[in-house]
Amino acid sequence: MSGVIRMTGELEPRGSWQASRCSLGKAAEVVHTRSALLVMREAFYGATRFEEFAERTGLSEPVTAARLRELADAGLLRREPYRDPGARTRQGYALTPMGADFLPAFVALMQWGDRWLQPDGGPIELRHDGCDAPVSAELRCAAGHTVDELSAARASR
Amino acid sequence: MSGVIRMTGELEPRGSWQASRCSLGKAAEVVHTRSALLVMREAFYGATRFEEFAERTGLSEPVTAARLRELADAGLLRREPYRDPGARTRQGYALTPMGADFLPAFVALMQWGDRWLQPDGGPIELRHDGCDAPVSAELRCAAGHTVDELSAARASR
Repeated sequence: MSGVIRMTGELEPRGSWQASRCSLGKAAEVVHTRSALLVMREAFYGATRFEEFAERTGLSEPVTAARLRELADAGLLRREPYRDPGARTRQGYALTPMGADFLPAFVALMQWGDRWLQPDGGPIELRHDGCDAPVSAELRCAAGHTVDELSAARASR
Repeated sequence: MSGVIRMTGELEPRGSWQASRCSLGKAAEVVHTRSALLVMREAFYGATRFEEFAERTGLSEPVTAARLRELADAGLLRREPYRDPGARTRQGYALTPMGADFLPAFVALMQWGDRWLQPDGGPIELRHDGCDAPVSAELRCAAGHTVDELSAARASR
């Protein structure tokens, strides 16, 4: 069986359709900059404190603060106050379910970068904690078939 | 078995690691704007001509031209001259293997948008052309286990 994906839905007439309701466009509005993706990356890697986000992304403090605020306002991070002994209460950030659910997109982007933008593969490997086998983002149908191609002809004509 | 992903590689010491070699950062440098994602979307949906990209993305002509040029220079699209009867030769754009391989990231982003940013689900459904079952982007290990969580504790401490 061929691994071709067919698109259905509000695609016709294709020429007049500007895809303004497209979920990709909406997703891109939320995570629309390289810096937003870097902040999300550090949230997945376990950062919760402002200093961790700023240091590990390499972004400036104002940019880090702006991205944390935007991602919290958009619902991907939630604010979690914390307090070190003897210090004042400060704002931390943790992934919400909406943010955690970004993981497949995150892994898919990272692995695309590994394959096409790294001369020697990527520096990070993802393995299943249970069985140690390497993890990847793949496209599959509910019946379990692997798919890898979009049926562009049907979508565009 | 739990569906947890473990990260291995150049993660330690985590505090001093700025992830500058991270493939996500590199991927984000290439597809770094909402407009770049929209142009890629239309390439997946079958657009090849400048007018199709401009109309369907809703981007201005200069922005469309800049994104097409950048994506071609980065290797995701290739320039394919075409000529309508009686007209001069014009520049078209088609997905390269590198661009086509962006599909899992594209679908993962779109479906995240469907789940979290659309009040009534997304306007487009992806189905396997062979068996008609719905298609989704999932994280799986090579042994076939579904995984859905990153072991942040190990990564960050």
